[in-house]
Amino acid sequence: MLSLAGGTPSPVYFPFDNLKADALVCDSFSTTARTQNKGALSWLWDLFSNTQVSTTPISIPKYAENPNEIDLAVSLQYGLARGIPQLQKFVQEFSRKVYKPPYDNFATLLHTGNTVGWMKAVTTFCNPGEGVLTSEWTYPSAIATMAPCGIRAVPVSMDGQGMSSNALREVLAEPHPILRPHVMYCVPVGQNPTGATMQMQRKKEIYDICVEFDIIIVEDDPYYFLQEGPYILPYQRASALKESEPGDEEYLRSLAPSFLAFDYQGRVVRLDTFSKTIAPGSRLGWFTCNPLFAERLERQSETSTQAPCGFGQSLVTKLLLDWKFTGYLRWLKGLGVEYRRRRDFFIDCIVETFHIELAPPSQNMFHGSEMYLASAFIPSSVPDKCIKTHLFSFVPPTSGMFVWLKLHFDSHPKVGELGHKTLEMKLWVELAEAGLLVGPGSMFSANPSGASPSDPGHFRISFSYAEFKDLRKAVEILDRVLKKFYRDL
Amino acid sequence: MLSLAGGTPSPVYFPFDNLKADALVCDSFSTTARTQNKGALSWLWDLFSNTQVSTTPISIPKYAENPNEIDLAVSLQYGLARGIPQLQKFVQEFSRKVYKPPYDNFATLLHTGNTVGWMKAVTTFCNPGEGVLTSEWTYPSAIATMAPCGIRAVPVSMDGQGMSSNALREVLAEPHPILRPHVMYCVPVGQNPTGATMQMQRKKEIYDICVEFDIIIVEDDPYYFLQEGPYILPYQRASALKESEPGDEEYLRSLAPSFLAFDYQGRVVRLDTFSKTIAPGSRLGWFTCNPLFAERLERQSETSTQAPCGFGQSLVTKLLLDWKFTGYLRWLKGLGVEYRRRRDFFIDCIVETFHIELAPPSQNMFHGSEMYLASAFIPSSVPDKCIKTHLFSFVPPTSGMFVWLKLHFDSHPKVGELGHKTLEMKLWVELAEAGLLVGPGSMFSANPSGASPSDPGHFRISFSYAEFKDLRKAVEILDRVLKKFYRDL
Repeated sequence: MLSLAGGTPSPVYFPFDNLKADALVCDSFSTTARTQNKGALSWLWDLFSNTQVSTTPISIPKYAENPNEIDLAVSLQYGLARGIPQLQKFVQEFSRKVYKPPYDNFATLLHTGNTVGWMKAVTTFCNPGEGVLTSEWTYPSAIATMAPCGIRAVPVSMDGQGMSSNALREVLAEPHPILRPHVMYCVPVGQNPTGATMQMQRKKEIYDICVEFDIIIVEDDPYYFLQEGPYILPYQRASALKESEPGDEEYLRSLAPSFLAFDYQGRVVRLDTFSKTIAPGSRLGWFTCNPLFAERLERQSETSTQAPCGFGQSLVTKLLLDWKFTGYLRWLKGLGVEYRRRRDFFIDCIVETFHIELAPPSQNMFHGSEMYLASAFIPSSVPDKCIKTHLFSFVPPTSGMFVWLKLHFDSHPKVGELGHKTLEMKLWVELAEAGLLVGPGSMFSANPSGASPSDPGHFRISFSYAEFKDLRKAVEILDRVLKKFYRDL
Repeated sequence: MLSLAGGTPSPVYFPFDNLKADALVCDSFSTTARTQNKGALSWLWDLFSNTQVSTTPISIPKYAENPNEIDLAVSLQYGLARGIPQLQKFVQEFSRKVYKPPYDNFATLLHTGNTVGWMKAVTTFCNPGEGVLTSEWTYPSAIATMAPCGIRAVPVSMDGQGMSSNALREVLAEPHPILRPHVMYCVPVGQNPTGATMQMQRKKEIYDICVEFDIIIVEDDPYYFLQEGPYILPYQRASALKESEPGDEEYLRSLAPSFLAFDYQGRVVRLDTFSKTIAPGSRLGWFTCNPLFAERLERQSETSTQAPCGFGQSLVTKLLLDWKFTGYLRWLKGLGVEYRRRRDFFIDCIVETFHIELAPPSQNMFHGSEMYLASAFIPSSVPDKCIKTHLFSFVPPTSGMFVWLKLHFDSHPKVGELGHKTLEMKLWVELAEAGLLVGPGSMFSANPSGASPSDPGHFRISFSYAEFKDLRKAVEILDRVLKKFYRDL
């Protein structure tokens, strides 16, 4: 068939004759206890070990000799909104093997990152005026995406596993001014901002409630492969860590299941992204959902983003095909251990710096999780007398990038005069002036604008990016500023 | 400042140590008459000349030594929705020098292709229930993008320069059921599907009407650099073509101006794309507009697509910075001449195959343009007697990728029985069965669904992609099928 139907340029006019890259090998990062017990000095090891990387060359020609191979003539041309066939095939197999949806004809289609993936879900599933169920603390961009469509967040209380199933049932059972929400947005692993991770039982409970009230679950799961496991205090750690790399099935079993694993009705739309596993700039991810939803989401993509960028698609696909499924799993295993090292190092710094004890149940906002209570001795108005003051508490996260600090402003001398929200802002400014930027908790509130969040006074602190020496420095700044902040204002 | 605020991974975990490519040199394609007079045999030349290309290597390290240089640690990280600074700077300078907006503080920001650029304009400027002014024949995806937002097309009649200014005034002056449209969508150069190009005077007229009625003009201009100039019949062509390459200013003056050039009020939002000048798969383009609109569009991007793909951004930027502004203009000059060669070759094939004459004004749907009327001698019911039958007419496009054929079904023996719309469909099927796929005209109608288009019976034929031998073959198929179609059905 001779096609003169499309407005497509000839690949002769693409000014790239090939692409090449040196890609890291899939076992670049250790999967075992290796540096785990080096404790506070591991940043030194880090400094030296990262100067050299092992790479293998990859290359993509303009015209492949074999039609199954990736080439630029296809990747840089207009293409299917759901992505180039080789990458579609890879993610379809990946979703099947990793998330194990219990129905056969689930569909996968590429998108250009979870933020726009969520936008497509909103414009596909919601109508103006509706509400969407979210956790009471949530990713603010998810709310900002909905707002221009006239869709508001309906917040649900949380505990140590994220959204509470009891609270969800209460919210759904109460009368709704317009329509009862029929879509849920959730980040079930390493939740943004609280770091909470839903385990199997909680997901089952929430899924069953969603069946009862006919709710579509949109599972935005960027931190899925950053499951670090429970935090173990340094002196107990060595004996608790594995000495050998887990096999593929053992590794996958160790991960909290996706909502897809329970999805016998096809009501889950899962958003995966390569932002945390390859690079945020890849702007590449995929939907996994039932074929009816997938068809609608694909039409959405065709009239908006179209296909993901061909430079990114071809390079990421070539890398994944070179690594193969098991090689990519090897990369993910290493990545999880790297984030565990980061999490451990950061929490270790806090544990070493502050006086730490387990919070009594009455002070534990996240029921069911071990909450650490951090205190310091603050000089009082009585000369030479220090008072042990509760500064903040937190649940050491088992996944993701964030520690969610609850600030104990009740111990602050001016709490009655200023209130929690103002104190949060003031402390945030003090920290910034001392050279430390953290995420102010108030920006993560899902409560409608104007209303005050249910429980103000938090910071989201990310241990994902900084070098280890800077993580230590950050805790030092936090210590210095907090001690000053609780003494005088 | 130590930032633990963002959820950003360390670049240590990006599995690419560098990117490299062999890029075509900017003068890969001739800018002069070179092959123009080779006529129908130029595809042979084409075949041999494209087997070898001149390239220069480009490379992007993970960590650049100079902070002004592009590197992967930045390009593959979360970044500004408006694009990496080096590319922002390039497109800002490009818009200033090429489109010459008459105000200083215009803004440019990157987007991920004109389709999503238009979607962002719709969601930013329109409210559900409104209408958007479009040409009566228009890019169907633009309408499909609006539809889910509850926004309908308000079609305006066209002539040889695209949207008619008189018709626009009439549409705006008549009473509107809900709200008078306040946004216009147009493809002013090499319009999709008609190939029409608006010249300076028409743009001024339309701009003035938009001032009078307070309309925002969204100028979607992907074919701007495919301005091929008037079609000249082969026997007159050699003497009419330039022998030397035009200078940069001469070249820019030769192009129809952008609406931006008249935009003293800041009501134009221009959409540029690299899809036709670099590659569609780059999914990269930019807005040029006033800073107030730009700020809103940037917020839209932050909560949807975020930044364009970092692989694409870094590679395209490195190429453009290597070529520099004048090198990129050199590439565009060559590209324009390549499309002229394609346009000339395809129209030459039609002129050689059919009996061609200039259409009399009464049959010229595109007033003000030279319209070619194609006929053939078709056997009649009287044995051994052929009747000269008008098959189709067209205006040879001066820009873009498309020839818009108006089919003269009035000459068809069964027009009374079947009507134009059915004949268009039947002929489209006949062509497809004979191995030629073209764009059926009905899909480009901006008239509300259900209503029949004002003037059915068109095909959009693209000369942008196929090899020259296939363009010739396509015209042979068209000839064979048309002759059969008009003889018996």
